[in-house]
Amino acid sequence: MESKSILIKDTVIVDPGKTKKGSVLIENDKIVEISKDIGVNNAEEVIDGSDKILIPGMVNSHTHLSMTLLRGLADDLNLDEWLNEHIWPVEANLNGDYCYAGALLGCLEMIKSGTTTFNDMYFFMDDVARAVEDSGLRAKLSHGMIDLFDEEKRKNEFKESIRIIEKCHNTADGRIKVDFGPHSPYTCSPELLEEVREKANKYGVNIHIHVSETKNEVDQVIQAQGKRPFEYLHDIGFLGEDVLAAHAVWLSDYEKEIIKENDVKISHNPASNMKLASGISPVNELINNGICVSLGTDGAASNNNLDMIEELKIASLLQKVNTLDTTALNASKVFKMATFYGARALGLEDEIGSIELGKKADLVLLDRNSEHFTPYRHPISHLVYAANGSDVNTVIVNGEILMKDRDIFTIEEAAVLEIAENAAEELVSKS
Amino acid sequence: MESKSILIKDTVIVDPGKTKKGSVLIENDKIVEISKDIGVNNAEEVIDGSDKILIPGMVNSHTHLSMTLLRGLADDLNLDEWLNEHIWPVEANLNGDYCYAGALLGCLEMIKSGTTTFNDMYFFMDDVARAVEDSGLRAKLSHGMIDLFDEEKRKNEFKESIRIIEKCHNTADGRIKVDFGPHSPYTCSPELLEEVREKANKYGVNIHIHVSETKNEVDQVIQAQGKRPFEYLHDIGFLGEDVLAAHAVWLSDYEKEIIKENDVKISHNPASNMKLASGISPVNELINNGICVSLGTDGAASNNNLDMIEELKIASLLQKVNTLDTTALNASKVFKMATFYGARALGLEDEIGSIELGKKADLVLLDRNSEHFTPYRHPISHLVYAANGSDVNTVIVNGEILMKDRDIFTIEEAAVLEIAENAAEELVSKS
Repeated sequence: MESKSILIKDTVIVDPGKTKKGSVLIENDKIVEISKDIGVNNAEEVIDGSDKILIPGMVNSHTHLSMTLLRGLADDLNLDEWLNEHIWPVEANLNGDYCYAGALLGCLEMIKSGTTTFNDMYFFMDDVARAVEDSGLRAKLSHGMIDLFDEEKRKNEFKESIRIIEKCHNTADGRIKVDFGPHSPYTCSPELLEEVREKANKYGVNIHIHVSETKNEVDQVIQAQGKRPFEYLHDIGFLGEDVLAAHAVWLSDYEKEIIKENDVKISHNPASNMKLASGISPVNELINNGICVSLGTDGAASNNNLDMIEELKIASLLQKVNTLDTTALNASKVFKMATFYGARALGLEDEIGSIELGKKADLVLLDRNSEHFTPYRHPISHLVYAANGSDVNTVIVNGEILMKDRDIFTIEEAAVLEIAENAAEELVSKS
Repeated sequence: MESKSILIKDTVIVDPGKTKKGSVLIENDKIVEISKDIGVNNAEEVIDGSDKILIPGMVNSHTHLSMTLLRGLADDLNLDEWLNEHIWPVEANLNGDYCYAGALLGCLEMIKSGTTTFNDMYFFMDDVARAVEDSGLRAKLSHGMIDLFDEEKRKNEFKESIRIIEKCHNTADGRIKVDFGPHSPYTCSPELLEEVREKANKYGVNIHIHVSETKNEVDQVIQAQGKRPFEYLHDIGFLGEDVLAAHAVWLSDYEKEIIKENDVKISHNPASNMKLASGISPVNELINNGICVSLGTDGAASNNNLDMIEELKIASLLQKVNTLDTTALNASKVFKMATFYGARALGLEDEIGSIELGKKADLVLLDRNSEHFTPYRHPISHLVYAANGSDVNTVIVNGEILMKDRDIFTIEEAAVLEIAENAAEELVSKS
């Protein structure tokens, strides 16, 4: 990477916990100065931030990016019909090129809506890595492991997971990291989960898993293992601060204690949980209990977009109406979920998630000259409750400008839409 | 209005109930031809619809437009504190110029997100009418009447309501109509409600009222009147097919029967009901029972935007998670709420709400060349679940192009933002 400096001048810096006026200087991939006034001679490139607000790039902590190809394929169906008759038959014909095409469309969508880091679990993850490399985003990737209690399948899943770790971990100037991705306690055997725990320690990588998304899967785990999912995972020694559990909708009080005790990270996916009628995670309670709850969109087949700004609003509103308490999950808290807690959930809190000296320059500017920010008051309120992804103006990742004035530099927008359209048509025609 | 013809050529016509390819010809204010192929020589202006979808302009059936000035003023507070310490003190200093400024900002926001008709209840409604006239939108306006059981206040409220009816009803080429707007059964006396019923009949106008938004107000009505709100309104002879009740969150089975029997129209406001923690209206059940439920954003102080495309998604997702049924309030049904049922709720079903010969040309084109519509499949699914207001490209009301390629012709965007910003600052500084 060539040496480069960028000055974001005279803006409103909106960080989790603090909003202030100022300028931010970037050198290479890092934030090197934050102060009230920095002269323009200090930087090769100057971005006028005076009609904008600056936020940390948002972290989408649970998605299946290539599923953008399945956007709108089937909606409003019950879960069994949706999976068995629509999603799984199409997924059976996936290949690396399709996954690349879908991931590229997802990267485009995330850049345009202010997400700079995402946590992805799916298949053909080295092809997803290609899209991350091309687009300039930051990502943690995991191969989704499903053994259905079969030993042969288990071996293959480890082979593929380790192939991806060895090929992709810490590539793309460190923007790509790889985790283990055991799908869930109801689709993976105890042997797989125990071996994941052991190998995650060995390789020094994290674990990304779905837990307790639906009541039905909780019942399956109780039937198979004699206890609820988090109890079971706790008892086999699977849990730890390096485990990110997506969904966590159906929780007993004891499971909440287990999550807290083990410092397990949660990814809350409200739009997907609503659309699939999975239920409502007690997020407000978890956060008030000191549990690290981040925010994710889930895949585009069950959302159906990857707009984290929309997700901010849905998350907050859902907690309020569910608790009948207007103060639940206020704008600041949900903004923190999408930034600082997102970074922590992915084990990246030393690198990203806030606008601080020495952190990576993963930054997003939103346009204040819009109806959503007028009259201009509390920027976090406008971001959470009034804005949407289209208010994002400029996106910087690892010190590189990916988008400015809504023009994307790393990938060509029209070409990405065409590649994805063609891949989706071909893929669906096969099933 | 000068005579004019517009041809929307080679598009996808997405009407409630039916999607088909075709072209639409507009002459003056009306749709005069819908067919597979219409030659370009038939029109003075031709809009290429080949990379777009065409929908009926959306109907926002309950809002308080001038409250855009209060956007983000106070969030995440309990209802009493929000009203008593923030909203009401500011509203005490409202005047006609402020209401015009706020309404203008609201009109801008609605045009940009594909709403062509709105149903507004607030104050200084002749100034709101000015904003409607300037912007080119269609609206039903009502002065919000609150007598707090005081006779003097009641007289003044009728004076103002009748002033607005006489001044504004059927103005702006018929784009503006006026209704009576008794605020609610807990802020209005039975005498006021009975006189509204009588005078609405006399003037031939409709009635717009809030009913059963919160559990607390239901309890107040039970205490004051000895019965639940819809029972009470039924028993005093207030209800009828010309009554639009906003919210209708807390309903007994008997009240649902009353609503159905009287053909009372409902405006469902999910984002506001969630943000204010009011509760969840049983909308899916009401619609399945044949009740006309339309969709509204409520005011920007409790939403905090006026984006009906966002509201479509929130409405559908909220019913699904509340009933734990993925099939609840599917995309087609919620789209119908925002178009055809919206028109019916406002008594305008002969004029607007669908793309039909002889109806007013209130039409919206959305851009298909976007990530939200890729891969392109079921347009209603993409509209409801993936899109947002920024996907709106062109807006036509009463045969006049208000926006094309996101450029607004009737009002000047930068000027509107400035007027609203200044008005809001001045207004809030007074309280």
